[in-house]
Amino acid sequence: MAMPRREGAAGGDIVLSQNNYGKSGVRLVKVTRHPDHHDLRDLNVDIALEGDFEAAHVRGDNTGLLTTDTMRNTIYALAKEHPLDTIEGFAVALVEHFLTAGPRVTRARAHIIEYPWERIEANGRTHAHSFVRGAGERTATVTGTAGGLHVEAGIANLLILKTTNSGWEGYLHEQYTTLPETNDRILATVATADWSYGGATGVDFGRVWHGVRDRILETFTDHYSPSMQHTLYRMGTAVLEAYPEVRKIHFSFPNKHHLRFDLSPFGLENNNEIFHATTEPYGLIEGTVERT
Amino acid sequence: MAMPRREGAAGGDIVLSQNNYGKSGVRLVKVTRHPDHHDLRDLNVDIALEGDFEAAHVRGDNTGLLTTDTMRNTIYALAKEHPLDTIEGFAVALVEHFLTAGPRVTRARAHIIEYPWERIEANGRTHAHSFVRGAGERTATVTGTAGGLHVEAGIANLLILKTTNSGWEGYLHEQYTTLPETNDRILATVATADWSYGGATGVDFGRVWHGVRDRILETFTDHYSPSMQHTLYRMGTAVLEAYPEVRKIHFSFPNKHHLRFDLSPFGLENNNEIFHATTEPYGLIEGTVERT
Amino acid sequence: MAMPRREGAAGGDIVLSQNNYGKSGVRLVKVTRHPDHHDLRDLNVDIALEGDFEAAHVRGDNTGLLTTDTMRNTIYALAKEHPLDTIEGFAVALVEHFLTAGPRVTRARAHIIEYPWERIEANGRTHAHSFVRGAGERTATVTGTAGGLHVEAGIANLLILKTTNSGWEGYLHEQYTTLPETNDRILATVATADWSYGGATGVDFGRVWHGVRDRILETFTDHYSPSMQHTLYRMGTAVLEAYPEVRKIHFSFPNKHHLRFDLSPFGLENNNEIFHATTEPYGLIEGTVERT
Amino acid sequence: MAMPRREGAAGGDIVLSQNNYGKSGVRLVKVTRHPDHHDLRDLNVDIALEGDFEAAHVRGDNTGLLTTDTMRNTIYALAKEHPLDTIEGFAVALVEHFLTAGPRVTRARAHIIEYPWERIEANGRTHAHSFVRGAGERTATVTGTAGGLHVEAGIANLLILKTTNSGWEGYLHEQYTTLPETNDRILATVATADWSYGGATGVDFGRVWHGVRDRILETFTDHYSPSMQHTLYRMGTAVLEAYPEVRKIHFSFPNKHHLRFDLSPFGLENNNEIFHATTEPYGLIEGTVERT
Repeated sequence: MAMPRREGAAGGDIVLSQNNYGKSGVRLVKVTRHPDHHDLRDLNVDIALEGDFEAAHVRGDNTGLLTTDTMRNTIYALAKEHPLDTIEGFAVALVEHFLTAGPRVTRARAHIIEYPWERIEANGRTHAHSFVRGAGERTATVTGTAGGLHVEAGIANLLILKTTNSGWEGYLHEQYTTLPETNDRILATVATADWSYGGATGVDFGRVWHGVRDRILETFTDHYSPSMQHTLYRMGTAVLEAYPEVRKIHFSFPNKHHLRFDLSPFGLENNNEIFHATTEPYGLIEGTVERT
Repeated sequence: MAMPRREGAAGGDIVLSQNNYGKSGVRLVKVTRHPDHHDLRDLNVDIALEGDFEAAHVRGDNTGLLTTDTMRNTIYALAKEHPLDTIEGFAVALVEHFLTAGPRVTRARAHIIEYPWERIEANGRTHAHSFVRGAGERTATVTGTAGGLHVEAGIANLLILKTTNSGWEGYLHEQYTTLPETNDRILATVATADWSYGGATGVDFGRVWHGVRDRILETFTDHYSPSMQHTLYRMGTAVLEAYPEVRKIHFSFPNKHHLRFDLSPFGLENNNEIFHATTEPYGLIEGTVERT
Repeated sequence: MAMPRREGAAGGDIVLSQNNYGKSGVRLVKVTRHPDHHDLRDLNVDIALEGDFEAAHVRGDNTGLLTTDTMRNTIYALAKEHPLDTIEGFAVALVEHFLTAGPRVTRARAHIIEYPWERIEANGRTHAHSFVRGAGERTATVTGTAGGLHVEAGIANLLILKTTNSGWEGYLHEQYTTLPETNDRILATVATADWSYGGATGVDFGRVWHGVRDRILETFTDHYSPSMQHTLYRMGTAVLEAYPEVRKIHFSFPNKHHLRFDLSPFGLENNNEIFHATTEPYGLIEGTVERT
Repeated sequence: MAMPRREGAAGGDIVLSQNNYGKSGVRLVKVTRHPDHHDLRDLNVDIALEGDFEAAHVRGDNTGLLTTDTMRNTIYALAKEHPLDTIEGFAVALVEHFLTAGPRVTRARAHIIEYPWERIEANGRTHAHSFVRGAGERTATVTGTAGGLHVEAGIANLLILKTTNSGWEGYLHEQYTTLPETNDRILATVATADWSYGGATGVDFGRVWHGVRDRILETFTDHYSPSMQHTLYRMGTAVLEAYPEVRKIHFSFPNKHHLRFDLSPFGLENNNEIFHATTEPYGLIEGTVERT
């Protein structure tokens, strides 16, 4: 079944526009073996490159293309040399490499998810090389061109819930509105946050990341929430006020509804105690808070 | 634990920028009951609104906000009146409604996934009201402002695979390159395609959707593929040449690698017969083909 | 950090009882290259072995243990020699191999999931080596001991739905019952079926598998369903009456509830047209029909 | 399309055998509102009933059947009255209820998954009503008949990993064996454990659950692991020695392989530092340790 190669039959005014390619889902674990303990990093790395790839698309000419298998090899090889102290720093190293590794690359992007591992506590002390996985994820996204680097850090899969001090009142009532107002509900979300730094250098990525996470959690607790929108804005403000390094922050908050279950047919009162946690549908509130 | 409401402590130069909110994951099934048979639509609908929502974010003032529960109600109510002949048409109706329903809305977006159901064949004929679920999904995304509507149609989760007539050769070899070249490999992807129409009217959404799907499948079969990139470009060209209604088309192609398993330790040859199908990592090739 | 090995501190009356080990998630794709077309099998294989593994558990003595990496190699190597015409037949070959490969094995089990691929139709005919993935899965489970083999075949992820000719009436009403009765509802499930053959030989696994699937689909359409339970029983009876090779059949039917959405607040009637498809909670009806 | 009901065409020697039905995926959240703080339970409850349900299956006669919607209502209603201090205790209450609620029920089973929530720490102290989700899950399964109750507790989705002090040597080498031996590897699993109590009363379910989890974690750290099997046995022994209430314990350990990435083509050494974490295939080691 050998078949001859055919040239692409390009229409007169049909062109390739935005495109990118890369390797995704590279699962890298690095163990740094200190004399008396081990450190562990567990990462999922995606690389995407943009550039002049028209020859490959239009003519099937792969010359000068860095293959995605090489990207995978490179991630593992660079991880050997890099301390991997922060994923932001490692993403910067990857982007700087790929900007020069592919001769036709004009823009490179590294996205990293870090899965958290905590040391096991056994017999009253933390263990040197045994770990238990924690909740949530840390993320970093670095994009770069000849003009410079842009660094984003983030939090993913942070589930937070408060059992009171949240309501939903005063909204528009129209022909399709049936929801009753409330000044006492459960507020719950699977929080995603992504924030940008002014530059790629001079930032203590580890300290700021933990600080931003703390500000988000504290702000969640410190006010009556009249809406997910208002809580989002307060969180953004708290982060930007505390960390001048942060230029803007974006939040994505699915509103995981907890519906008060109607116990009245059974002669029981439900004083905001018994709820049905629902998956679908969910509200989705997204917004960015930034410096002018 | 009643707590006083506090105003947001807005920093001098800290502002709300891009934001949107809506309802996601609205699972709507409509049965249209004809005298001798039933039609079935099984949809997952997302609504997102943009507009002047600063009062809600900054001051906790919900006046004029359409609640996401109302959006859900509206989807079900409008589905009663709409024929649901195409999801593109229903998404247009939803967007037109939401542009006027929320007084502060400046931009509305409806995204719909349709799960396909085929009639069961029993005793040699298709049944009037019994269905079996098919593979893959059809999608539509409509965005609208006072200035007009933009309609996109799409395909998701279309798994395609060819066992030969694909290769990967002539690429850049550098210090981190170990992949051997090949002119005979398995090519497999979970295809996503999204294309834009020039306008929201005068398009036969059903006919074009099935035609685009056919062009994608046929193009997949009709040439030796020197790269996922080249096949992407040929598919885009084929669609744009066949359907003048389509202004541009974007593809996202994860390259699901099938690795030839090394049987030589067991004294067996592997003439491209026995493969290990891998999930991670995967290549990701994305690109847009459009009219100038 | 080298540490001495310690013997397990077995309590006097504490013992190892039932145990098994093996390899799971072996993703095997086989391409059979005929002169004018290719055949494709896409499988997920699990192997589990039982036997006298006490030395490994209690004393850390691995002598005589077949490592799970060897199981993986074996699956690929045997797939080279086996025609893979049916997954039941390949599972039999695997079990017969592993019963003798591990010296301490007394019982072996192979479980296979087959993902269906259909030929792409292009230009009016089916293509020789290009495929599109279909819905649902075929399964096989073979267990064997020195005393013989037991063969099960199955269907997984078969989504079926009927829009009428189903009801739920006449059930017990007690203090916690609020559900209204109905003689017209949507009935939908994600069907799993597993059936046993009398023996491992003399069965045309392919013909019977397709026949059983047809009987299940036809029975789903051919009666008013007063309950998922009754439909389950009728399906089982239909299969056993049609196929004397089948000794018993087990069904697992999650009842995917479709709730009529209340449109009355909007002045609209809902004549069983507009439904909310729910994921959680779901009913789960399971049962076995067999020959005495 | 009204259709007459038909009786099931039962074959002479074809009978209904084992069967059960119930409600699954009931997502219950209970908030217990104390004067100065709130407690939170987040549960996923499944109920399954066995009994004399032949009339429903064979004749479509639903008389005496408790509908699964009633089971859902009952779970929420009983949760109002029950303190929900432990899921084992709540599962006992559910089973005791359902054994008498359905007149034809001979056996009832409640399975509960609890999702852990930890109090948010803000400004140096734990918050009264704000929570962040932790990792892993706690489970309970209670089955009951007229003869008594059987209580199981469990752990699910506990990810543990050690970076050294684990090996795999001395196993059988045969024709399909290619794996090299090692005395230093990463050992990682997604642990599931389920243990049985001698009875349903007189057990401090909370104290023992936390104690068993601690024994599992500590045992994971305290020895050189020559195999997952040996570590499994040691964990079981440690639990049974520490908790006489526990009659037996079953473990399911997928062996999540971390493959040393070959850096030699790049002139780099890999001293057990850089690993590729794989999802498929995986080893699966399962076993029970019990008292004689």
